[in-house]
Amino acid sequence: MSHIDNIDTFTLAQGFRAAATACGLKTSSVMGASSLDLALVLAEGPCAAAGVFTTNRVKAAPVLYDQETLARNPGGIRAIIANAGNANACTGPRGMDDARQMAALTAQALGCRPAEVLVLSTGVIGRHLNMQKLTQGIADLASPAAQHGAPFAARAIMTTDTRPKVSSRQLEIGGQLVTISGFCKGSGMIHPNMATMLAIITTDAIAAPDLLQAALRSAIDRSINRVSVDGDMSTNDTALLLASGAAGVTISAGELPAFTAALTETCVELAKQIARDGEGATRLVEITVTGALDEGQAHTVADSIARSPLVKTAVHGGDPNWGRVLCAAGYSGAAIDPDKLSLTFGPADRPGDNDSPAVQVVSNGLPTIYDERAAAATLRGDPVLITLDLGLGDARATVWTCDFSAEYVEINAHYTT
Amino acid sequence: MSHIDNIDTFTLAQGFRAAATACGLKTSSVMGASSLDLALVLAEGPCAAAGVFTTNRVKAAPVLYDQETLARNPGGIRAIIANAGNANACTGPRGMDDARQMAALTAQALGCRPAEVLVLSTGVIGRHLNMQKLTQGIADLASPAAQHGAPFAARAIMTTDTRPKVSSRQLEIGGQLVTISGFCKGSGMIHPNMATMLAIITTDAIAAPDLLQAALRSAIDRSINRVSVDGDMSTNDTALLLASGAAGVTISAGELPAFTAALTETCVELAKQIARDGEGATRLVEITVTGALDEGQAHTVADSIARSPLVKTAVHGGDPNWGRVLCAAGYSGAAIDPDKLSLTFGPADRPGDNDSPAVQVVSNGLPTIYDERAAAATLRGDPVLITLDLGLGDARATVWTCDFSAEYVEINAHYTT
Repeated sequence: MSHIDNIDTFTLAQGFRAAATACGLKTSSVMGASSLDLALVLAEGPCAAAGVFTTNRVKAAPVLYDQETLARNPGGIRAIIANAGNANACTGPRGMDDARQMAALTAQALGCRPAEVLVLSTGVIGRHLNMQKLTQGIADLASPAAQHGAPFAARAIMTTDTRPKVSSRQLEIGGQLVTISGFCKGSGMIHPNMATMLAIITTDAIAAPDLLQAALRSAIDRSINRVSVDGDMSTNDTALLLASGAAGVTISAGELPAFTAALTETCVELAKQIARDGEGATRLVEITVTGALDEGQAHTVADSIARSPLVKTAVHGGDPNWGRVLCAAGYSGAAIDPDKLSLTFGPADRPGDNDSPAVQVVSNGLPTIYDERAAAATLRGDPVLITLDLGLGDARATVWTCDFSAEYVEINAHYTT
Repeated sequence: MSHIDNIDTFTLAQGFRAAATACGLKTSSVMGASSLDLALVLAEGPCAAAGVFTTNRVKAAPVLYDQETLARNPGGIRAIIANAGNANACTGPRGMDDARQMAALTAQALGCRPAEVLVLSTGVIGRHLNMQKLTQGIADLASPAAQHGAPFAARAIMTTDTRPKVSSRQLEIGGQLVTISGFCKGSGMIHPNMATMLAIITTDAIAAPDLLQAALRSAIDRSINRVSVDGDMSTNDTALLLASGAAGVTISAGELPAFTAALTETCVELAKQIARDGEGATRLVEITVTGALDEGQAHTVADSIARSPLVKTAVHGGDPNWGRVLCAAGYSGAAIDPDKLSLTFGPADRPGDNDSPAVQVVSNGLPTIYDERAAAATLRGDPVLITLDLGLGDARATVWTCDFSAEYVEINAHYTT
C-alpha cells in the first residue's frame, strides 16, 4: 500500500499525539513544500526510548543533547520537539545552550521535566537559532492554535523534501496487535545539510530501552542507512524510537526478532520514500548484491554502484550500460572476482516488484546475448531493479537510490548508444 | 609557465618521437576535440620502464597485458601504442587477444619484438576493438601519412577532454641536464569510463627499472591519484614512464629524491590540468589539509572535502559556506577533533598562488568574525584555495578538483545566502 496517498489519515501508535506550527524559522530559501517548521510529538506518559545518530565527527548540538539525555533517562521520555529551517550545527557552546533551552521551554509548556524532552533540528548550519521565534512557536504548539495531528508534524520537519514520508505496520504478538508508526524527512543528492535525515518512530508496545535500542540499530542499518545520498552524511542525522506501552503487549527477548522485522519493514518503507524524493529524481532504484561472502561485502559493492553518477545517468536514460555497473563494483574495494559476476536488470529473484521481465546482461563477467530493448525497458520501470551476483557465497544486501535526471547529466545518459 | 599555451611546441625527452593518426575508432559520440585516435611513442633504443595501474578489480585487457609485459621485460621497452574510442575493457579472452595483437602489429610495423611494446586504450567499455581499423591505423603510423610530433599524440588519446594536457621539467644532476616530459588525458566528473586517466611520461635519464618504478609510484600517488573524479576509478587508468638514457646521466639511489621531486612536479602539473578539465568546470580547486597526524589522515580529509557536491556547488557560487567544509571533514572517517579545526579560504601559507588575500573563516571549530565579501572573493579566484588545519600534527596533503557548475547545481550554489 502506498503511504504517500494516505498521508492525511496517518496516525502515530496509541499513546502519542502530534502537533505542528509555523514559527518563522524556515526562510523563503528553505521553505520547502510547507511553512510549518515546528513539530511536537507528545506521549501520554513516560516512554522507553532509543536513538541512532549520525557518525559524523561534527555533531550538531541537538545530537549531542539527545545522546546525553537518552543516556541519563532512557526510560522516561515524554516528548520530542523538532524544528526545520535551522540545524543548530557548528554553533559552539551557545548552540548547546539553545538546544537545552528548546527542551526546557517545551517541558515548561507541557508540564514535564527538561530531561524528558528530546530535540531535533534540521536546516542551515552555522547559524544560531532564533530563540524568540522558537519560544513563541513552542507556546503556540501547546495552544488550540496549533495544527493537531501527525500529518502536520510530518510536514513540519520537511526542508527540501517535496512530500511528507510516513509508514506504519502492525504485528501480532501473543494474539494482540502492536503498532509501529513513524515519519521522517530527508531527500539527499545535492543538499545533505538540508537533507539531514530525521525519523521519529512510535510504538505502543512495552519494551526495555536496551531492547528498543538493539531493534532500532538493526532496523536503521538495513534501511535508512542504506539510502545513498552521494556519500555526504549530515551533522544532524537522527532516528528516535519511543515506546508508549499503550497496547499492553511486552516485547521481551523472545519477541524481539519479530518486532525488529516489523520495525525494519517500517524503516525500509521510509528509506524508499527518501530515495525516491532525491533531488530531481524520477525513479526509485533498488540495487541488490547477492552471492556475497558476507553482508558487509554485499553492502560495500551495492553502495559503490548506488553512488556512481555513471550508473545513475545510465538508469535515467534507460541505457542498459552493464559496463558501468561492473566498473563500480570493481572499484568498491571489495575483493570480488570479475569472472564470477552476473548482472540482471529487472526483478531477478524478486518477481512482482516490477512488471518488466528480468534480463540477464552479464554472466561470469562477460556480456550475454540479450535483447537490448527488453533490457532498456526494465530500466524505464519504477522501481528500477538491478541485481549483481558476486558468485562467491550466500550473503546479500540491498541499497536504495534514485536516477540522475538533471539537465547537465541528461546529455550523458545516452553516451554509449 | 602555462603548458596549455605552448602545446604546439611540446616535445618529449631526448631519444623519443611520437606520431598520431585517425583510424576511425572514435565514433561521433566519443569524438572529443580531435578525430585523431591512435598515438605512438617510439624510442630510439630499448628503455627502462615503469607503470602504475588502476586498482579497480575489473581491469581492462591492456592493463593486464602491460603488467605482464613490464614484469617480463622492464628494461627493454621500445614503444607505446595508445588508442582512444574503445577501452577494450570487460571484453574477456578475446579482449586479451586483441591487446596482444595490437602490440604484435605495432612491433611488426616498427621492426621490434611484441614484448617491447606497451598498449593503452580508453573509450567505451564492453565492446570489442575493431581490429581492421586498428591494423590500418598502425600501418599509417609508420608511414609519412601520420601526423608526426608529440602534440598530435597528446591530442589523439583525448576522449571527453577539451584540451591536450602536457608538462615538462628539467633538473640538473652532476652539472648535466635531465628532461622529464609527458602528456596525459582524463577529465572526470560524470564520465569515468571516458575519463580514464592515461599518462605517458618520458625521460632521457639512465635509470634502473626498480628506481623508475619507485619514483613513478611516489609521484603519481602525490599528483594524479589526488585528483578527485567523484570517486569513480576507471578499469583502464595507467601511467607509464620510459627512460631512454639519451642524456647520458645516471639516476642512482643518491639522485633518486631529486629525480622523484621533479617527476612529481611534472605529474602535479598534469593533475591540475585534469582537475581543471572536469566536465563543466570553471575553476581549479586546490584543497590542502594541514596539521594532520600523518599524510594519510590529511589525504582522507582533503579527499572527502573534494568529493562533496555541497562544497563544489558553494565554490561555484562564490559562497563561503564553511559549514559544508567542516561537515565533509566530519564524515571523512578520519579521527578529527571538531574543536581544533581552522579553515582558511585563499592562499593561507601559499602566497602567490592566488591574488586574493587569505580569509580565515573558522578558528577552533567556530566561525570567526570575517569579511563576507573578501571571503566570497577568494572563492571566485582561480585557482580556488581551501586550507583546513586539523590542529593535531604536522602532516599535510593536497587534493585537486573543480567546481560544480552545471545548471542543476546552479540553483543550489547560493543556498544559504
